[in-house]
Amino acid sequence: MYRDVTIEELDKFMQKSRAAFHSYRKLSLKQRADFMREIAHQLQVSEAELIVIAARETNLTEARLRGELKRTIFQLTSYAAACEKGDWLDIRIDTGIADKTPPKPDLRKMLIPLGPVAVFGAANFPFAYSTAGGDTACALAAGCPVIVKAHPAHAGTGEKVAEAIHKAIKINHLPDGVFTHIHGVSFSVGKALVEHPLVKAVGFTGSLAGGKQLFDWANQRKEPIPVFAEMSSTNPVFLLPEKLKNEPEAIANMYADSITLGVGQFCTNPGLIIGIESPELDDFEKILASKIEKSVPETMLHQGISKNYFEKRADTLAQPEVRIIAVSEISAKENLAVASIAETKAENFIKNPILHKEVFGPFSLIIKCTDISQMAEVALHIGGQLTATIMATDDDIMSYPELIEDIKNLCGRFILNGVPTGVEVCLSMQHGGPFPATTDSRFTAVGADGIRRFSRPIAFQNWSNDLLPDELKNENPLGIWRTVNNELTKESV
Amino acid sequence: MYRDVTIEELDKFMQKSRAAFHSYRKLSLKQRADFMREIAHQLQVSEAELIVIAARETNLTEARLRGELKRTIFQLTSYAAACEKGDWLDIRIDTGIADKTPPKPDLRKMLIPLGPVAVFGAANFPFAYSTAGGDTACALAAGCPVIVKAHPAHAGTGEKVAEAIHKAIKINHLPDGVFTHIHGVSFSVGKALVEHPLVKAVGFTGSLAGGKQLFDWANQRKEPIPVFAEMSSTNPVFLLPEKLKNEPEAIANMYADSITLGVGQFCTNPGLIIGIESPELDDFEKILASKIEKSVPETMLHQGISKNYFEKRADTLAQPEVRIIAVSEISAKENLAVASIAETKAENFIKNPILHKEVFGPFSLIIKCTDISQMAEVALHIGGQLTATIMATDDDIMSYPELIEDIKNLCGRFILNGVPTGVEVCLSMQHGGPFPATTDSRFTAVGADGIRRFSRPIAFQNWSNDLLPDELKNENPLGIWRTVNNELTKESV
Repeated sequence: MYRDVTIEELDKFMQKSRAAFHSYRKLSLKQRADFMREIAHQLQVSEAELIVIAARETNLTEARLRGELKRTIFQLTSYAAACEKGDWLDIRIDTGIADKTPPKPDLRKMLIPLGPVAVFGAANFPFAYSTAGGDTACALAAGCPVIVKAHPAHAGTGEKVAEAIHKAIKINHLPDGVFTHIHGVSFSVGKALVEHPLVKAVGFTGSLAGGKQLFDWANQRKEPIPVFAEMSSTNPVFLLPEKLKNEPEAIANMYADSITLGVGQFCTNPGLIIGIESPELDDFEKILASKIEKSVPETMLHQGISKNYFEKRADTLAQPEVRIIAVSEISAKENLAVASIAETKAENFIKNPILHKEVFGPFSLIIKCTDISQMAEVALHIGGQLTATIMATDDDIMSYPELIEDIKNLCGRFILNGVPTGVEVCLSMQHGGPFPATTDSRFTAVGADGIRRFSRPIAFQNWSNDLLPDELKNENPLGIWRTVNNELTKESV
Repeated sequence: MYRDVTIEELDKFMQKSRAAFHSYRKLSLKQRADFMREIAHQLQVSEAELIVIAARETNLTEARLRGELKRTIFQLTSYAAACEKGDWLDIRIDTGIADKTPPKPDLRKMLIPLGPVAVFGAANFPFAYSTAGGDTACALAAGCPVIVKAHPAHAGTGEKVAEAIHKAIKINHLPDGVFTHIHGVSFSVGKALVEHPLVKAVGFTGSLAGGKQLFDWANQRKEPIPVFAEMSSTNPVFLLPEKLKNEPEAIANMYADSITLGVGQFCTNPGLIIGIESPELDDFEKILASKIEKSVPETMLHQGISKNYFEKRADTLAQPEVRIIAVSEISAKENLAVASIAETKAENFIKNPILHKEVFGPFSLIIKCTDISQMAEVALHIGGQLTATIMATDDDIMSYPELIEDIKNLCGRFILNGVPTGVEVCLSMQHGGPFPATTDSRFTAVGADGIRRFSRPIAFQNWSNDLLPDELKNENPLGIWRTVNNELTKESV
């Protein structure tokens, strides 16, 4: 157990963080990238110890933890590469025109860092979305110091990761304040952190209640600050008629795997499956049910998550006209998560907001519609989502263009004939979506575009070439793609 | 006078707006651009009438109004060109890798529109930041219908501009709901608009109190929405020692013009001038004072603005240790705005938040520092700004790098040896800045990058080429710059 940070300690940390910002933001893109690569290297060096501690704290398998650490290292090195390349800086240059009336000044715009960023680690990803995870990597790439509040469920793992980061700080001769790791089981620590005037942005991965609370605190500050909270998603899957008729078994098998993957502990777990009443839907349900019945109950990350799963699932099952279809038949020890699916009619779903809530774990609710127009109505009643999936033939898509548009409008990632679980780390990934999936649908939490969350544009007007930052100099010494007089180019001005 | 819209009428308008969104968002980039060019054309056609109405409503000179209408038309046509070009869509494509474990899916990301946007017209720009102004142009380019609440000070001008937009809607066979013009003198109209569930983003130009109120309402919604409020800025000007020593007269002349331009009714008016006590600063003050004394009092936009100017100026002058230096010597009729400058010591400024507030009008406060370190302290006490200006020689800049960094960190546009007034419409412009200058420092209200404010990314996973939108198809039929497998290119995939 770690002691909660006190308000006085937090203030001292923030002063150090601000001081570190002054020097860290002046590092070149290459220096930032080198630092991030050194963190990745230090994590690699500590792998054995990290896996032992994380396995003890989280119940995750060694294979999963090794995979997650690998992903974390890939995030750090690939965001470092993107940082160094500089395309994310969105550079625009318009050269002056002296003989215009009035004269047009020379203007050059690029992104600069916001300042110290507070990161709240995720319960379900001790590595990839915690201490040295995606938010931290993006903030460091943007030029921002980071203060991580460790998730209490894996605070020891966090400590060990923080050690690796501090080694990288020493090796790169950076000030200590570039990274700070604090603990806080109490709500008041999170509140004090978000409300601290020296914090300039917040990254969070977790529950809707938690993320919304941070968002509210941040907006009620004297100086409101941006909050990137990735919160809640039921990831609806729409089974279109022809596709379902053609492949009920393949779809059922695919989704049995997706629902139970990682004991359902992914923000992209498919929580709603929407189909039209038909013999094919019955077939699909039967096959899915038989797979779920054969699934093996597993231990969830920690007791809190497990308790939450059973409670939320019970809330759903307690609603009128919700019928359980399948639970794992293998008898489970207490606290093991039992995969299960239930069903209800669309009209029931539409009018009951409790059924719209995420049940975090290996559970999915099948919603049975009378026809396509009711399916469209269901789509309009599902809130913002990280993902939405359509299982459809080309003919299905051509036949129901309005439905497809409505579903597209719900989500940040729009999947055709696949499963929502599995979030690729690449530039084209959008891991975000309309509220309540996140508090800011205009940014992504996965992929190097996430760096932009922690930066803002500044335009330099009338500065001579010598005085401009390297990124904006005429000769383009860093070889960055820049929009010069409305044309993208790597050429010098 | 126009009647306030009722809640029932507003709801009907919003239903029409949502219906229009369904078809408008499907328009090609070229169709959106054609529509915007048609609006520009219709404004051109109505120029004579527009100028007459606006002159009657606003006290602005015909020359200024013609200039502003020209700017408005330029905004529409240049944002239309940017819209059509499509670079703003931030397209990223990563092609799939089937033999990876697990297989990497094909992912393609682009920006899509948020939905109906509410725009609150600015008092000080009846054309350029009102009915068919920058926010409207950006929202239409992004693919969003617009609902403008007319500014009561020039509601008739707004009506006439709305007519031009509706002509363009007819000519382009678009649904009426693409653009809605409403009136509301009462606060409750603005509140109802921001709180309407079908509104998905807000654009605003005006006071800090007004913008912050919209921001709070928007964040307290069940589904919070983004607010782009451009609000309050004192646009500090820092006079560095060597530059001031070399050119006190030139700087004073330049700033006398900037302070009085347009009766000081620009959000970029230089409200604070910070120098170090010295004979040169005294010289500068004397010359500036003599120019201000000779300035001619002028009529402000409307009585509200004029009243506000005199009240805020009086608040500042009533503070201890604030001394008035110069007022226009030409006797002014009632309600004409008298240009004036005052001075105070830095220590007084630092401890008195009333002096940090914007006085909207032809007024500037000179802050006298004992030395460079006190100047840096002043910089740390000035809140977020649209602009910050440094008057400096190269040696000044080399001598005080920390001060320069602190000033840069305050603002969205960083000017060297110029004046903040004059906001060029181009891609490299940043018209925005940290709070309280705006509610979202990560976006700009001027320039085609402002289109992004009203859009969000979506990633298409595993869609076949035929089913993808044209922007994302392999063959790149629209010839857009896209990042394909991490490299910017216009080539097909």
